[in-house]
Amino acid sequence: MKVYLDNNATTMVDPQVVEVMMPYFSEVYGNPNSLHKFGTAAHPALSTAINQIYTALNAHDNDDIVFTSCATESNNWVLKSVFTDLIVNGEKNHIVTTEVEHPSILSTCRFLEEEGVKVTYLPVNENGIVEAHTVKSFITEKTALVSIMWANNETGMIFPIKEIGEICKAKGVLFHSDGVQAVGKIPVDLQDVHVDFLSMSAHKFHGPKGVGALYIKNSQKLTPLLHGGSQMGGRRSGTLNVPFIVGMGKAIELATTNIEEKMADIRAKRDRLEDALLELSETLVVGSKDGRTPNTILISIRGVEGEGMLWDLNNGQIGASTGSACASEDLEANTVMLAIGADNELAHTGIRLSLSRFTTDAEIDYTITHFKDAVARLRAISSSFALQKPTKGGEVLECELHH
Amino acid sequence: MKVYLDNNATTMVDPQVVEVMMPYFSEVYGNPNSLHKFGTAAHPALSTAINQIYTALNAHDNDDIVFTSCATESNNWVLKSVFTDLIVNGEKNHIVTTEVEHPSILSTCRFLEEEGVKVTYLPVNENGIVEAHTVKSFITEKTALVSIMWANNETGMIFPIKEIGEICKAKGVLFHSDGVQAVGKIPVDLQDVHVDFLSMSAHKFHGPKGVGALYIKNSQKLTPLLHGGSQMGGRRSGTLNVPFIVGMGKAIELATTNIEEKMADIRAKRDRLEDALLELSETLVVGSKDGRTPNTILISIRGVEGEGMLWDLNNGQIGASTGSACASEDLEANTVMLAIGADNELAHTGIRLSLSRFTTDAEIDYTITHFKDAVARLRAISSSFALQKPTKGGEVLECELHH
Repeated sequence: MKVYLDNNATTMVDPQVVEVMMPYFSEVYGNPNSLHKFGTAAHPALSTAINQIYTALNAHDNDDIVFTSCATESNNWVLKSVFTDLIVNGEKNHIVTTEVEHPSILSTCRFLEEEGVKVTYLPVNENGIVEAHTVKSFITEKTALVSIMWANNETGMIFPIKEIGEICKAKGVLFHSDGVQAVGKIPVDLQDVHVDFLSMSAHKFHGPKGVGALYIKNSQKLTPLLHGGSQMGGRRSGTLNVPFIVGMGKAIELATTNIEEKMADIRAKRDRLEDALLELSETLVVGSKDGRTPNTILISIRGVEGEGMLWDLNNGQIGASTGSACASEDLEANTVMLAIGADNELAHTGIRLSLSRFTTDAEIDYTITHFKDAVARLRAISSSFALQKPTKGGEVLECELHH
Repeated sequence: MKVYLDNNATTMVDPQVVEVMMPYFSEVYGNPNSLHKFGTAAHPALSTAINQIYTALNAHDNDDIVFTSCATESNNWVLKSVFTDLIVNGEKNHIVTTEVEHPSILSTCRFLEEEGVKVTYLPVNENGIVEAHTVKSFITEKTALVSIMWANNETGMIFPIKEIGEICKAKGVLFHSDGVQAVGKIPVDLQDVHVDFLSMSAHKFHGPKGVGALYIKNSQKLTPLLHGGSQMGGRRSGTLNVPFIVGMGKAIELATTNIEEKMADIRAKRDRLEDALLELSETLVVGSKDGRTPNTILISIRGVEGEGMLWDLNNGQIGASTGSACASEDLEANTVMLAIGADNELAHTGIRLSLSRFTTDAEIDYTITHFKDAVARLRAISSSFALQKPTKGGEVLECELHH
């Protein structure tokens, strides 16, 4: 059996999504910006896709939704264009974000710091989130932008975006949220929650890799990241990736239709897996079940290095992650776990298991068995665990939030 | 019969390309930056694609080829990062380009002018190109970058890139070429021709829309346009679009294998079409047959508005263009035709016919017949043509290069 439990890194494209994309490769292949039938033939499908996204997000007609190549592009776009518009060509100089953002936010912020921007990186609290009052206390009259993720990729922790949005609105500060781990996983209602910019990526909700979007409230001005042929009303140039836009529309519709039911189903499987793994001694799962996206578990097992565990799971045909895939080639301790107060050893043992609506009960059963066996195998050869056992056996770990 | 003659705007994805992409949607769907088998399973196909591109361009092992979402991204990347690296954080302030670049270059240059950069827009000469000695005379010690297209999208005219590259190398100025209309259409040998950066786009050579690349000679430093998870060695972050990268590799291989034969075949069809259309009186084709990409005709017909002609061709199921698709929603006169000295009326009558290796002889026959009939129909209702006829009948047009 093969079990893919790395859906926060990327997802399988839903075969229904592939099906709707297929005609736009070799049949309806014209450039939709052309005036002839080969081009205009793509317009109805593009309209459908755009409508699917507005519907899924409950976006207002006055808002813009602009397709990009990925959320990394959307994130770079917002930060760099706010830099151009309000910092280089304005009177602001400050961005507020968090320590646990995706690398596309953190690396861009570091780049902007080199260009003279002041960036405040808020730490997460002991619950793994940044609270709204904390954000409020760091906004100054020089603040151009607050950029805070809707849900964390590593822990699944959901941030208080509604409260943060109200604060930004009241302070007159632009608010961007990286919604990559929220859209398609939990309800995102953009008439209920105030965000000026929301980034999203199709491949996190069973759409294709290589297409994302940026939601822009009230169609407000934002200098393009990609200047050119004025596609999408000049907001993002480049020939439209018709099949992937069509696919993204279908994917978001499939992910968000009856989302409460889908969440309950995924969550039931996730909780069953989590409860079973927490039967193991000296384990830690970050964050409350209710506070997380319903598909995510970040678990640490004392004495088991994350990389070793990943390897053993991989041998068992189980795909998991030690952190975000984007950073998986380096072996640093998990920053979120350190932030919530885990010691350095535990922060090296984090394994992320992220389910999808395609995850089956049989796969959960298989994973429970294999995971527990793997822990036994790895603890048996773990010098650190063997050394600690006599002194720490049965003790409740200091930073244990669960179990 | 349907005839697609707008291949400079975009192309049909070759069914062989679709075939190689298919497994990477719902079968091998892992993130290639993940450490598990779901991710690493994509590595061999990615390696193949990269090798196909190095081979097609005769790139050196020391050079980098970085995948992007399109040539618009590649073009924005080079110009904006040279701005950051050599202008904001250096001592240069000047870019040399041409008046006839793609909008992704021209709009980016206009944006950079707002930020304080001096841009020289070289006009094309009466042959529709910019000569190397002209470029040389505008390079100063403040010049950070020369950016000149390899071949023009509207006329197909091939620019003297080898000579311009030598001049830039001798002057120590970075040289970027937008190779979108050259790669896959004519030989591009990057060990023979010196360019520091070359932009390309898969959908111009029967690959998918939404993937492009930037060639970087000697892997030299260039600040990323997309900061993030350090994919592609940190040069361009964002989850790899595996199916489209695989497709781009296959597409460039199919386009460039035996390219001389393919060029001869396309050129024979193009010349037959061109010769037949030039039998019409008072027509003009821009540029010598040898000086153009072998698939392109930009033809003007006195008394026939480009938009009207496009409409008539469209009714006959023939897809053509009045200029580049990117600018096709505005009705300005064709800038290249004005540049080569066509009067304003002729510059409004340009119709671009661009063939591909899928264009058949039967399609050429059909197009000749329909095109000639359309000209007769439109001239019959053309007040300007009727008025001019008595005085201009039989006269050789001043700016006529052909016929």
